[in-house]
Amino acid sequence: MFLRIDHVGIACHDIEEKIAFYESKFGLRVVSREVNEEQGVKEAMLHIADAPGGGSYIQLLEPLGPDTPVGKFLAKRGEGVHHVAFGVPDVEDALRTIGGEGIRLIDERPRHGSMNSSIAFLHPKDMGGVLTELVQAAPEES
Amino acid sequence: MFLRIDHVGIACHDIEEKIAFYESKFGLRVVSREVNEEQGVKEAMLHIADAPGGGSYIQLLEPLGPDTPVGKFLAKRGEGVHHVAFGVPDVEDALRTIGGEGIRLIDERPRHGSMNSSIAFLHPKDMGGVLTELVQAAPEES
Repeated sequence: MFLRIDHVGIACHDIEEKIAFYESKFGLRVVSREVNEEQGVKEAMLHIADAPGGGSYIQLLEPLGPDTPVGKFLAKRGEGVHHVAFGVPDVEDALRTIGGEGIRLIDERPRHGSMNSSIAFLHPKDMGGVLTELVQAAPEES
Repeated sequence: MFLRIDHVGIACHDIEEKIAFYESKFGLRVVSREVNEEQGVKEAMLHIADAPGGGSYIQLLEPLGPDTPVGKFLAKRGEGVHHVAFGVPDVEDALRTIGGEGIRLIDERPRHGSMNSSIAFLHPKDMGGVLTELVQAAPEES
């Protein structure tokens, strides 16, 4: 079901500072920046590698305010890994399969993710403490 | 410098239970099991994908006792993501470069990792709260 590690989502206080850090120290480059009002977060994707069905990235997350999910995470845990995302061929199919396995779905239906992907989150309490995201990459434009 | 997301290391109380979970729910397969006495941990690697210069895995970590690094992590944070590992072409070269960038190295020299890899850890305080591992995969046997 999993095609790749799509990304590791890292919560931070200052996304511009962290982008500059990864660019200057590790030579990574930003391939996407977005503000996701629905999730209350500013996002940047740093490209690591091409990978089966999509790519592999570091995703940086800065909350739009303290009352957002990432804002609350930072207040409780401090900066660090917020979630892990795995690429799947079809996120609706994956949700159907996984929901039938007794794993609670945070999203019953796919929603919009970075770079026009379709995404859904699985509950960390059923995933060994790991907030887990499924990602179906956008079809490649031709 | 980074070739791939090599693995995400997940700390757990019962590695056999978590292996069974990922095998049965997601169809992953274990490609390596090791006890690393030096790090005080029992490890299993679950294969996600082949990736540039190596592979991509979920690494499950069960501490050998409460006074080990992973044991202390579990007591403090509970089960969840322990570290993120990036594949590099040459871990000694990478350490030289990164050490010169003012990032504290937990390992000044590479040590033994899963599946005969060479690994080194970077300090989470200099990595935005992310315990970061560098991995040079073992040369393929021919």
